[in-house]
Amino acid sequence: MKLEEAALKYNEQGLIPAIVQQHDTKEVLMMAWMNEESLRLTLQTSTTWFWSRSRQELWNKGATSGNIQHVVALYADCDSDTLLVEVDAEGPACHTGSKTCFFKKIER
Amino acid sequence: MKLEEAALKYNEQGLIPAIVQQHDTKEVLMMAWMNEESLRLTLQTSTTWFWSRSRQELWNKGATSGNIQHVVALYADCDSDTLLVEVDAEGPACHTGSKTCFFKKIER
Repeated sequence: MKLEEAALKYNEQGLIPAIVQQHDTKEVLMMAWMNEESLRLTLQTSTTWFWSRSRQELWNKGATSGNIQHVVALYADCDSDTLLVEVDAEGPACHTGSKTCFFKKIER
Repeated sequence: MKLEEAALKYNEQGLIPAIVQQHDTKEVLMMAWMNEESLRLTLQTSTTWFWSRSRQELWNKGATSGNIQHVVALYADCDSDTLLVEVDAEGPACHTGSKTCFFKKIER
């Protein structure tokens, strides 16, 4: 469906969480936030754009690091309040150099 | 690491997003919110507990539907503000009966 038909629900800050998954290995790489503009840019450029809550600015993932995420497919969930972005990632997703941001295992 | 060592960052509502992934197929099933109590219950019972923002109550996924999610592993991300829960899901994750909540494809 087109973005207009998806009737996405943004939160009070105008943001929606976007889960980023490597399309072939299915590894979950990171979660970040999009606003409507970053989502439009993501669809237009087929690379991931997010809204940085700490810097209060748009960021195109990989623009400075080179670790670009090429968008393969993008889904909204049943409630239209979360996105899943399947990508082909160049380089690590995490600023620590790890492939995925989810490397801290929590146990009982 | 233990939960206490993870130094998780909850949002202003005391919540943290939890991405739920089927451990073997790596399919992303859903995203829901946990508070500290639901996270403790998740670790204690090895089944997923969330905080329902609409009903303002704890819910144990599958308690009424039977679609229980057995926790295989739980990770925090680098920023300690998002969780990834690998599960073995009994039945569909989505209230629509779909295996995954992410079935609405958005295209340019």
